[in-house]
Parts: sequence; C-alpha cells; structure tokens
Amino acid sequence: METLSRIGLAGLAVMGQNLALNIGEKGFPISVYNRTTSKVDETIERAKREGDLPLQGHYSPQDFIFSIQKPRSVIILVKAGSPVDQTISALTQFMDPGDTIIDGGNEWYENTERRIREVSEKGILYLGMGVSGGEEGARFGPSLMPGGSYEAYKNVEDIVKKVAAQVEDGPCVTFIGEGGSGNFVKMVHNGIEYGDMQLISEAYDVLKVAGGLSNEELAEVFTEWNNGELESFLVEITADIFRVKDDLTGEGELVDKILDKTGMKGTGKWTVQQAAELSVAAPTIAASLDSRYLSGLKDERENAAKVLWEAGMREGEEVEAIRSKVDKKRLIDDVRQALYVSKICSYAQGMNLLKAKSSEKNWDLNLGELARIWKGGCIIRAVFLDRIKKAYQRNPGLPNLIVDPEFAREMVQRQAAWRRVVGLAIQAGISTPGMCASLGYFDTYRRKTLPANLVQGQRDYFGAHTYERIDRPGAFHTEWAKLARQTKAAV
Amino acid sequence: METLSRIGLAGLAVMGQNLALNIGEKGFPISVYNRTTSKVDETIERAKREGDLPLQGHYSPQDFIFSIQKPRSVIILVKAGSPVDQTISALTQFMDPGDTIIDGGNEWYENTERRIREVSEKGILYLGMGVSGGEEGARFGPSLMPGGSYEAYKNVEDIVKKVAAQVEDGPCVTFIGEGGSGNFVKMVHNGIEYGDMQLISEAYDVLKVAGGLSNEELAEVFTEWNNGELESFLVEITADIFRVKDDLTGEGELVDKILDKTGMKGTGKWTVQQAAELSVAAPTIAASLDSRYLSGLKDERENAAKVLWEAGMREGEEVEAIRSKVDKKRLIDDVRQALYVSKICSYAQGMNLLKAKSSEKNWDLNLGELARIWKGGCIIRAVFLDRIKKAYQRNPGLPNLIVDPEFAREMVQRQAAWRRVVGLAIQAGISTPGMCASLGYFDTYRRKTLPANLVQGQRDYFGAHTYERIDRPGAFHTEWAKLARQTKAAV
Repeated sequence: METLSRIGLAGLAVMGQNLALNIGEKGFPISVYNRTTSKVDETIERAKREGDLPLQGHYSPQDFIFSIQKPRSVIILVKAGSPVDQTISALTQFMDPGDTIIDGGNEWYENTERRIREVSEKGILYLGMGVSGGEEGARFGPSLMPGGSYEAYKNVEDIVKKVAAQVEDGPCVTFIGEGGSGNFVKMVHNGIEYGDMQLISEAYDVLKVAGGLSNEELAEVFTEWNNGELESFLVEITADIFRVKDDLTGEGELVDKILDKTGMKGTGKWTVQQAAELSVAAPTIAASLDSRYLSGLKDERENAAKVLWEAGMREGEEVEAIRSKVDKKRLIDDVRQALYVSKICSYAQGMNLLKAKSSEKNWDLNLGELARIWKGGCIIRAVFLDRIKKAYQRNPGLPNLIVDPEFAREMVQRQAAWRRVVGLAIQAGISTPGMCASLGYFDTYRRKTLPANLVQGQRDYFGAHTYERIDRPGAFHTEWAKLARQTKAAV
Repeated sequence: METLSRIGLAGLAVMGQNLALNIGEKGFPISVYNRTTSKVDETIERAKREGDLPLQGHYSPQDFIFSIQKPRSVIILVKAGSPVDQTISALTQFMDPGDTIIDGGNEWYENTERRIREVSEKGILYLGMGVSGGEEGARFGPSLMPGGSYEAYKNVEDIVKKVAAQVEDGPCVTFIGEGGSGNFVKMVHNGIEYGDMQLISEAYDVLKVAGGLSNEELAEVFTEWNNGELESFLVEITADIFRVKDDLTGEGELVDKILDKTGMKGTGKWTVQQAAELSVAAPTIAASLDSRYLSGLKDERENAAKVLWEAGMREGEEVEAIRSKVDKKRLIDDVRQALYVSKICSYAQGMNLLKAKSSEKNWDLNLGELARIWKGGCIIRAVFLDRIKKAYQRNPGLPNLIVDPEFAREMVQRQAAWRRVVGLAIQAGISTPGMCASLGYFDTYRRKTLPANLVQGQRDYFGAHTYERIDRPGAFHTEWAKLARQTKAAV
C-alpha cells in the first residue's frame, strides 16, 4: 500500500491538473481523482514528465478518499453548480467528521453557504476558495481566496501558502472570512478584471482609431506603460498580443483577425447584480459587462453602422478628420493617464462592493489584505495593488479609494488628460463607456450638490414620496401642482 | 341586504382609495375592505363627498367577499411581498373557483407567478396588474398593465377599459400576457421612469451650472420644451416645480431647499438586475440607479468635494470659467436635443429588455401596444410614445429602436448637439452619467468593429477561452506568450 497523501484533488481538467502538479511540486504528496479515468492517467503522466512529482492517481471515490491522511482535505475543481453537488455527494460518503471539502471553482457564494450547511450535518468542514491566475497561475502560483471554516483553513494553511504566488510581502493567500466570502471576493475580483480589460480595450481603440497607431506602435506603447504606474499582467499581455503575427494567413497581426465578440462566464454579471442589490454604484464594471453584451450583437451593429453614420459620411471618414488633428505623442500620454485614473475608479467601486457585503454579512473583510493577495498570481495582479493595500492600511475605514490622499492627488493631477481623452472620443464617435463611467463616478462622487433635489421634487409631486430639506430636519410634502398654478396665476 | 357589487378592492391606502373611487365613478358598484377599519370609513366618507359614488364598505373579509357578484374579481392594493400573501390567504378562504385575485402592487414578477400556481389549486384565477400614475392617476385614470389569466382579464375588461386613462387610440390598458408579465412590464416602465428623471435632472444641472439659468428661466425652458418633441408629464411637472416658492422661509424657490438625496423603492434595482440577467445592455437606466445611490452619500460627497477639486480651485470657480464662455441660447437648444436623443436610447434599452424577457418566457409581448398604453395615465406618458408605437407597428421585429428609420434620422440630426453638451459637461466637471451612458450606447451599437477583439485575445491568452476569427469559421486558441517571445527574439 502506498503512503497516505497529504491532500486530495478531484476534477482534472487543465486547472485541476495544474493545481495538483503545483501542490506536488511544493512537496506535498497529493492524491488525484477524476470521473473520466483517462484524465487521471493523463495527470499522472504529466506528474512524471514534469519532475516526478508526488501524485497518486485513483479511479474510484473510495480509493481516492482512503488514500488521504486524516483529517482529510479534498480540493474539488469541477464546473460550478450541480457538478459540484454531485462531486461532494460522491466523495463525502467516504469522508469522516473533521474532513474538509475545498471547492476551487467560480461558484456563486450562496451555493457555498448552502453546502457549508449541508456537509456540516456530517461534521464535514468546507471552504469555498476562489482561485485566480488561469492555467498558468494554477500551475506556478495562483492567488487563492479561501473562505468558510477557519479550522479547515488552518488544516491546509501550510500547503496554500507554498502553492500560492509569492510576492515581497508574503504568499498571495489569506483566510478571507466566513461563509461564501472566498467566492464573493473572487467574484468581485473578476468584476474588476472585466473593468480592467474594458478600459484597456478602450485605450487601444482610442490610440488605434484616433491616434492611428499600428500594432507595432501599440506593442511599444503598452510595453512602455508596463514600466510605469500601469505595470500589470493585463498590460503586459496586451503588449504581447499586438506582437503576435497571423500564422494562418501569413499577413499582419493576429489581433486584427479576431472577431470582436466577447464571451463571458457569469461572474461579471453577478458582480453587477450584487452591486445593485447592495446599493453600491459600480458603473465602470457595469459598462464592461454591457460592452460584452453589445459586442455579441455583431450583425445588429453592422446594420446599425449603415443606418447611423451621418448621411454621406462613413465610419472611417469622420475619424480621418479627427486623426489629422491629433498630436500622437500627447495623445499616448493622455490615454495613459486616463486609463490609470479610470482604473482607480473601477477598483474603488469593487472595493466598496466588498465593504458593503462584508458589512451585510459580518465577514469583517480586510480590504488592504485583499489588495495584497491580488498583487501576484491573479489576472489583475499589478504594482498598483500595493498602493491600494497601503491606502487601506493608512485608513481601514476609508469611505472610498478616491479620497485616499495619494490617489486623490494622482486623480486631480491627471483629470485634465482624462477629460481630453474622453472628450476626444466623444467627438470622434469612439465609444469609451468604461472611461466615461469612471469619470462620471468621479464627477458625481465629488459633487457636494447633485441635481437629485429635482428628482426628489418630482417624486414628491407625482407620488407624495416626501423630501428632506437642506435647512431643517423632517420629511416634507408639497402640493406642487396647486402651488405652481398659483404662481402662474399671479404672473 | 345590499345588492352585490360588480368588483371588490382590498387595501385602502391612498392608491387603493383612489382606484376604488375611480371605479365607482365609472359606474361600477364596488365593495371595499381594509384590515384597519377606519380606512374603510374614510373611503366611504370620500365616496359620498366626491359624488355619492357606489362604494360599499366592509369590515370583515367574509362580508367583503360575499358582497361581490360571481365570478368575483377582487383587486388588492397592499404593500408588495408578504402583506400580499396574507391578504390573499385572508380573502381566498371565502372565494370560489372561477373567482379572481388582481394584485395591483409593484410586485416582483416571480412572486406573482408563485401565487398564480398557489391559488390555481383552489381554482382561483390571478392577475398581476401594474398600475402607474401615482395617486392622481389611480383616481382619474392610470395606465394599467394586467398580466396572468386571460379569462380573469376578460371578466374585468369592461371595468379596466373605463377606469384607465383614455388617449385618442383607446384606453391605456391591454392584456399584457401570461404569468408575471404585467408586473415585469410595470417594473421596466419604472426603470425607464428612473432614466427619464435622471436625464431631466442632468439637463437641469447643465443649464443651471454651465448656463447659469435661474429657476424662473428653467421654468420657462421646460414649459417651452413641453410644447415640442419632449412633451411629457415629467417635463411638465418639472416646469411646475421650478415655479413653486419656498413658503417656509419665504425666500426663493423650494427646489433649492430640497436635500439632494434621492429615495427609491426597488423596481429600478430589479430592472438593472434583470438587464444583466438577460444579457441586455441598459446603461442609462443603470446610471440613473447609480446616481440615486451616490446621491445618498451626501456626507461622503461633501468630504470628497473638499479633497478632489484642484488645489486652490473651488467647485464654483471652475464653473465660472466655463459659464462665461457659454452661449446660453445655443446651450438651451443643445441640451433639449441631447435630452431627447438620450431618452430615445434609454427607451431602446427598456424595450429590448422587454423583448428579451418576452422571448425567454414566451410572453409574446406586443411592444407597440405597450408603448400605446403608456401614452396616458402613467408617469412616463409622453407624445413621444406614440412614435415608439408606430416604430414597432412599422416593424414588429425591430432589433433596436435606434435603427428605426425615423428615430435614426432624429438621432443623426441631433448627435452634434448631444456631443457638444456631454463634452461641455465633461470639461466643466458636471457629471452627466445618464447622457454619457446613452451616448456610449449609441456609439457602441453603431460600431461595426469594436475593440472586443483585444478582450478576446486577452481571454484566450490567460484562460485559453478561445476566439473566433473574422475570416473563417471555428474556435481558435493561440500560444500567445510563446509566439510573442519569438517575435521579440526575432527583432
């Protein structure tokens, strides 16, 4: 009989395989299992090839579970939803009180909370653990967001701290909080990721269309940006993307051959719905979701392009007129600044969503620590996150990132460039919904007085919803129609 | 014994009282009931005072139900949620198969669908009926959106057609569709209403802040607008609002004394969440919801105003600089156009949300007919809705309002003014998130080619999500990092 493994992992699609290999490589003997057994062989094959890693393959749930030392910790990486329930049910029948299930999928946090209750009846512990970093991250160091049972976390803390990406201030993992907090935090991470990708694509669009930059120039610009305040995984890979030639046709760069329809998996949608639920404005993240939806309507857009450009003008012509007036170097610098501050507003929205949920659920989320574990491993990893960490360290009760003194200063310095870019885009008919949403967020949040007084007046007029006054307490109702008639009669 | 009533109404808050009086006034004898019996007396008192209307008051559910002729139709107007369930349970115990419950509240459509199933076990029919128009509308002619049992609708068709607002092409009521469609349509109506109110408040903000218009001038402008393409209830009451003096202090207009925090009731939130759920972009409606959320953060905004205006500059000064350059007359005309086209985009979003839900639920909603029943009685009533009705009559399969030939022409004609207004607001730091969202929607929808290709490239890079190509079918995956390294090495 083989020696018992330290941990188990069930579900051997690429993410699962990679995470198992990563765990093995860090010196933790690991059992692996998959319902389709060929995947088990494939994983064991890879374990041999990638350095004779301590992986044990199993073909039945029972053998798999019995091969793990107690208290057992079993990571499952299967499709979110009912496959998770099925896997839990197949595995837990062989598990004992004190053992732990760790779901590493992009699961809806309430499903995790239901499962925590369900398995607790058998004395089994549970973690819903967000895993970010894609296939590469899973293999070489992801960002891990485990939430649920603290006892379960302590059982695997040594493992996850080794397996996670390492940054200068520690491994990219922390115990997030109780319940489904790990999944919720991962969900918001993904919403922020949507925002980042949308903002980068808008920067690309403005530079390409209004600035006339070639793919080669775009690669250079993004490479340069990656050496400054925008340094991040997404900016880095964007530079790479512009460099890749189209091998299929042998002509030009591949980026120009990709169909402009964006897919999605659901976490962005959940983020937007939760923001609405929690009364948190998250317009930049919402704009990125809407842009994905609209990108999908390719046929409609092609038709609308015919109908909605001015008579006699074509999409290209209008833009030519703009491009001839643009100072390319200044535009590049302006777009860099606009991207950076738009990004700050997007993160501010995500962090405030986390804060609101934490308060609703009593999760006691540590926002600075969340920013820290996103510094490495995950898709949104960026130098910038260290600054967010510090902002929350300076003031854990910060109402909004954009009023942190450092971020505030940066935003004020960059706002002229930001307004120039958005203004130019609006003039040129280049949609920049993410940057506009961020700017609108900034301009709304810093307005001492909004025109919401009129809206309250309207609501009181037609619905007797009452209003407050600026100069005295209480709720007031006015017979608007009657009083307006009197004024008109008096004139 | 009194003669049997034609219909009953339970729940006698102001909306319920007014609707009952309206029904009585149209010649339909009606029984009324309320758990707190003083409301019954109050209603009967009003019925006498307002023209000896045929209302019968009852103090017990049984007497109430037994006073109505069979098959009985009973409207309930109580707070959405569990009060509706309690009322249904109190009343249905005395009702017979073939009788109908009609819920006139702003109910979540799935609650209605659950109740349809529940009461059907007793053979009772059900309608979820959206009622719009506020207290005034309920009393003198609301817009009614009944959905659920067609048989139940036929039982009250003669009543609702008389009670609803009347416009030149008929009463503002129609059978919406099965299930919770009546509530869903009312919900989207409210979402559109949020959008309208937000856009009007932005127009006000730009005119006041950048144009320096006084309340008197604003009253004149909105009055004038109400004689043109913007003619609508909300524009009309806005003009009224600017005219009302502040009686409390005797100084200036009341609108300036209203605290700029907007309340809300939930239907706007549901609309935004459903849009996300159905993959429909509804950014203008979402922006109006976000603006309400941000308006609520008055203390945070006051603090942010201190931190985020440029060093040495105050909110007012920046604006003074802008105002001195503005041509007031042209600004007013530009804002009128911007408001109108922003509104078209907002309605396009709402209609597409209805279309998507109709298709999901097989409700077979008639969008043109919905626009028609909104022409009178309800809060969003407007001349403009007749044009929407006609657009869908011209082409029931219209993919988007903004490509209807007439609306398209109007938008193209007005886009220069629109861009000027949004551009000016961005320059002045006046947030116009609704107008920006509409413009972004327009500019995104009419783009043949969006930068979504880059986003797909990124997704394939880090997540192997694959992409499509513009020049051949199939799903493709690329080893981006490897190929980019090769290019870099070759340089």
